[in-house]
Amino acid sequence: MALISPSRRLRRTPFSDGVEAAGVKAYTVYNRMLLPTVFRSVEEDYAHLKSAVQLWDVAVERQVELRGPDAARLMQMLTPRDLRGMLPGRCFYLPIVDETGGMLNDPVGLKLTEDRWWISIADSDLMLWVKGLANGYRLDVLIDEPDVSPLAVQGPKSDDLLARVFGDAVRDIRFFRFGMFEFQGRYLNIARSGYSKQGGFEIYVEGSDIAMPLWNALMEAGRDLDVHAGCPNGIERVEGGLLSYGNDMTDDNTPHECGLGRFCDTQTAIGCIGRDALLRVAKEGPVQQIRAIEIDGPKVPGCDRAWPITAKGKRVGQVTSAAWSPDHDTNVAIGMVRMTHWDEGTNVTVETHEGPREATVHENFWT
Amino acid sequence: MALISPSRRLRRTPFSDGVEAAGVKAYTVYNRMLLPTVFRSVEEDYAHLKSAVQLWDVAVERQVELRGPDAARLMQMLTPRDLRGMLPGRCFYLPIVDETGGMLNDPVGLKLTEDRWWISIADSDLMLWVKGLANGYRLDVLIDEPDVSPLAVQGPKSDDLLARVFGDAVRDIRFFRFGMFEFQGRYLNIARSGYSKQGGFEIYVEGSDIAMPLWNALMEAGRDLDVHAGCPNGIERVEGGLLSYGNDMTDDNTPHECGLGRFCDTQTAIGCIGRDALLRVAKEGPVQQIRAIEIDGPKVPGCDRAWPITAKGKRVGQVTSAAWSPDHDTNVAIGMVRMTHWDEGTNVTVETHEGPREATVHENFWT
Repeated sequence: MALISPSRRLRRTPFSDGVEAAGVKAYTVYNRMLLPTVFRSVEEDYAHLKSAVQLWDVAVERQVELRGPDAARLMQMLTPRDLRGMLPGRCFYLPIVDETGGMLNDPVGLKLTEDRWWISIADSDLMLWVKGLANGYRLDVLIDEPDVSPLAVQGPKSDDLLARVFGDAVRDIRFFRFGMFEFQGRYLNIARSGYSKQGGFEIYVEGSDIAMPLWNALMEAGRDLDVHAGCPNGIERVEGGLLSYGNDMTDDNTPHECGLGRFCDTQTAIGCIGRDALLRVAKEGPVQQIRAIEIDGPKVPGCDRAWPITAKGKRVGQVTSAAWSPDHDTNVAIGMVRMTHWDEGTNVTVETHEGPREATVHENFWT
Repeated sequence: MALISPSRRLRRTPFSDGVEAAGVKAYTVYNRMLLPTVFRSVEEDYAHLKSAVQLWDVAVERQVELRGPDAARLMQMLTPRDLRGMLPGRCFYLPIVDETGGMLNDPVGLKLTEDRWWISIADSDLMLWVKGLANGYRLDVLIDEPDVSPLAVQGPKSDDLLARVFGDAVRDIRFFRFGMFEFQGRYLNIARSGYSKQGGFEIYVEGSDIAMPLWNALMEAGRDLDVHAGCPNGIERVEGGLLSYGNDMTDDNTPHECGLGRFCDTQTAIGCIGRDALLRVAKEGPVQQIRAIEIDGPKVPGCDRAWPITAKGKRVGQVTSAAWSPDHDTNVAIGMVRMTHWDEGTNVTVETHEGPREATVHENFWT
């Protein structure tokens, strides 16, 4: 691994002091902001995530706030998911598509009130798309990036930790719902969500000034729960089939290719800009789709580029994320595979940049 | 410095193999792509850039291509610079602003033909803004990111090196003009431009397959010119006052605050989306502006966050880029300073994250 040069452009977060004190070893850059990737080691972080509880600085999930009478209309323009039945207090995972049906982002949308929404974005400057549309369609809506930095609490002991700081009512938050909870006189949205399969919450910390006080309070309260700083884990998220925008999908892909067809209501999502383009693919299905790929042999190298998937010398897809899984004793990977080779158990070759490996296509991920 | 974790999302470039072979030591991430920052050391790279010639992998300057009958109209919507007199074959440095006059990017625009333009972008997903506007205004224009990766040749021996590979006609390219030159049967745009004050060119390499052949041909041809892999240099660019989007300016700033008023023709740039917002600031001038800042004392730490500039305990600005300059034997910096303190020779304090330093405001940079 090479070093990363410091600059203001790669923004620190309100939790960076805590992250550094916890001994962060490596970062990635996400939405032009630092996202920790390793604390003790990827393998140690992985085992700890599955057994205890971690605080994750996911301030990189920047919020795009839409406010005003046209906010709901603009939200529906962005996504083929039908938002009409969505109530305030709900989170929806939202494929966001352009006029060709290509994925521009895969955020979680939060409906705060009828005319106020947050879009908790993956790695692209989605605000520019939203602002461009609002301007072009002359919509009556304000769009900006508020001072909100999510802090994730992930792992099997998340409920216990959060209850100590916010009270037992957090245990009643249902999956992909959020409620308002008080900390030092401030009310924060807390959602049951997060980028792992181990359970937990995302706290939408509004106001950078309370970020470190909250971080410290959680660290203090969780000492006997073995709380530790953590981060989205490169092994656990691949095992669980959690996609990463920019890694496993880009604007080349439709939601259906990404296995997100269940989040598309293409018939009824009237107003969605990509609706026309998606009607055909919604009806006939995609010709390639995300699959779990099991790669034979010892630990694969870091997947820093798309690895072609071939069969009999012909390209039939690509792997875009891969890691050695200690729990499953194999290399787990995420790939996009053509329909000719996407059936369970199909044998293929993965051309890593350090040589070919035999591999098997699976329909289900490892959780 | 921490390590950077590899992933496909942080895209490699068509020159990455050459960059690695040349011993790259550190990167930044720019437009979700790897941009080298150090080869031998920042100081050695700096001295070499000023005396010899370097190849820079600046593929991170992604191109946004606009093609179609409304391309010119859309270009003018993006910028307060009047584009009516711009001829094909010209490059223009373009402030790009939103409807509030806030800077969204500061690219170089290339007019290829009347209905075909490239925008060679700084670090933001400008394509999303451009596509959003095109969609909202229902413009007849195609927008995409072509397979074009700029390779910069910078340093005093740039003309000599390029002439050996492309012929002596490259010497006649005027500043911010470009011409078409042949390499292995392919015609490439070569512009006299680049992100240093040492002179040189940017080759718009169209087609990833010829990237490494061109890199190798230039390395081979320049052996006796002491050609070496290099990159935008953190000392040289601050000395020269070359601004960096995301570091020295953001969407909080108008072009006038960034000292880019000379690139704004706010009266005549009819159609520019930010024109109304900029008319007042164009008339009355900004209340804060970019200045050169000389910081006393030994080498400053890496400027990884905005450092407040204070005077008598009151905040009057911020420093956003800083470096120790061996040639000028002082710390050079770029800051935004309020008009009460922006005059030449004003004494201020810079609050670095490792403590305060005395400093002096200058009207001109070090070149």
